[in-house]
Amino acid sequence: MTLVNGFPQDTLELSDRGLQYGDGLFETIAIKKGHPCFINRHLDRLNEGCRRLLIPEYCSKLIYNEAISISKGLNNAVLKIIITRGSGGRGYRQPEPIHPNRILSTHPFPKYSTAFKEQGVSVRFCETRLGLNPSLARIKHLNRLEQVLARAEWSNLNIQEGIMLDLNNHVIEGTMTNLFYIKNNTLFTPPLLYSGVAGIMRQIVIELAHTNGYTLVLDNFTEKELLSADEAFLCNSIIGIWPINSINSTSLQIGLITRQLQFMISRYEHEEIIPNL
Amino acid sequence: MTLVNGFPQDTLELSDRGLQYGDGLFETIAIKKGHPCFINRHLDRLNEGCRRLLIPEYCSKLIYNEAISISKGLNNAVLKIIITRGSGGRGYRQPEPIHPNRILSTHPFPKYSTAFKEQGVSVRFCETRLGLNPSLARIKHLNRLEQVLARAEWSNLNIQEGIMLDLNNHVIEGTMTNLFYIKNNTLFTPPLLYSGVAGIMRQIVIELAHTNGYTLVLDNFTEKELLSADEAFLCNSIIGIWPINSINSTSLQIGLITRQLQFMISRYEHEEIIPNL
Repeated sequence: MTLVNGFPQDTLELSDRGLQYGDGLFETIAIKKGHPCFINRHLDRLNEGCRRLLIPEYCSKLIYNEAISISKGLNNAVLKIIITRGSGGRGYRQPEPIHPNRILSTHPFPKYSTAFKEQGVSVRFCETRLGLNPSLARIKHLNRLEQVLARAEWSNLNIQEGIMLDLNNHVIEGTMTNLFYIKNNTLFTPPLLYSGVAGIMRQIVIELAHTNGYTLVLDNFTEKELLSADEAFLCNSIIGIWPINSINSTSLQIGLITRQLQFMISRYEHEEIIPNL
Repeated sequence: MTLVNGFPQDTLELSDRGLQYGDGLFETIAIKKGHPCFINRHLDRLNEGCRRLLIPEYCSKLIYNEAISISKGLNNAVLKIIITRGSGGRGYRQPEPIHPNRILSTHPFPKYSTAFKEQGVSVRFCETRLGLNPSLARIKHLNRLEQVLARAEWSNLNIQEGIMLDLNNHVIEGTMTNLFYIKNNTLFTPPLLYSGVAGIMRQIVIELAHTNGYTLVLDNFTEKELLSADEAFLCNSIIGIWPINSINSTSLQIGLITRQLQFMISRYEHEEIIPNL
């Protein structure tokens, strides 16, 4: 099912700036028991992205209602929301006024093995570097060639994710996930000042760490520091948390803090879904 | 007129990766007297871009024929060619096999005053910085949010272009043009190793400089060095060469070398068009 500005539609005008320049934003949301999980957090991030890209804020209530309506009756599915700057303008110059397009589409849940959550995943370091660009860091915009190039580096089905470094050789994130590691009971994740996406699940993990008394450090780190971790995990809105059991040829243990966070997130998600059942 | 894979069409599937991730490339070509100028150079760059982005090379002959055919009967128009990785794949992971989409569209020539070529243009420095990213530098890909943000910085109709610096405060290019300056009879332009588009007109200027015995230096430079230039100009495939007559509040002379290059380019363009008349 796909809605463009509220109407079923499978195509978009070629003149749309989303296609012409990657001029827009997106969100990927898990649908569970008919409910788009953490929808308000996703819409808040979308609005923040619109503010950063100078796209006029759309009516959150309208898009919220469409998201709720399109998710009804679906279980374990994915809702993707795309906002583009619409058509028009002269070259890169944006049109005046801007008429954004909003696209909501539902998709089957990816076929991930349940073992990924339980026994962890194998990951590799990518050669493709994330560029440094504070004006686009943190937001989930449509300029995703770096991720496409990084994901094209491997086809081994036993590798579930690639870890990306930036040009300064700081570890930033996975191609589609954020990354945390744990050392001496302290959680570490990068601050994402120059690249990376500030994921919704990353933010939830940060909040859960704070409310549960874990020490959390937002700082840059290297491959070597990550490889010396006691535990490490990946997260995003679709997978929740996947423990990392190996990075290249280095094995990692799945530890207590990762398990506690997995448990807290499934409870938190459940609390969000229950009132909507 | 718009052709998608050879057929008239105004829309594209929402699933196309050009929209989903900016996963593709484009070319902007001047049509003069029914001929797409420097079409072979543009197709060579497109092929190089495909190679860099791991998009299978399309048949150059096919796209050449379409470009020639769609340009017939048009004078002073613009041909835009977009190649996307097509639909499919799982998230960022590219589909196997890849079925690229090719989109050729013609547009009216932008309404630029002839005074821009003759009396030069006023430009400003942009606040938006170009990120550093060698994996995407030089190619004309569809991830253009930096340019959109930079172009949104001003609406003063007396300012024709914005000059973009990179994160290291090196001058790189205009939002839609490449940039040269001249000091003591030597031409300077940035090497574009970490950002920027290696424009077709830039390459022609470099070749003309070499064949005509000018000294040309490909090196990084700062705002201050640019402001101390004897002459400076912008170039792209649509405008040819625009001399710069002022940058912010600093006036620049339009000098002999700029005028000579303008003359050589118009002659070179004419030589390309004549056999096709």
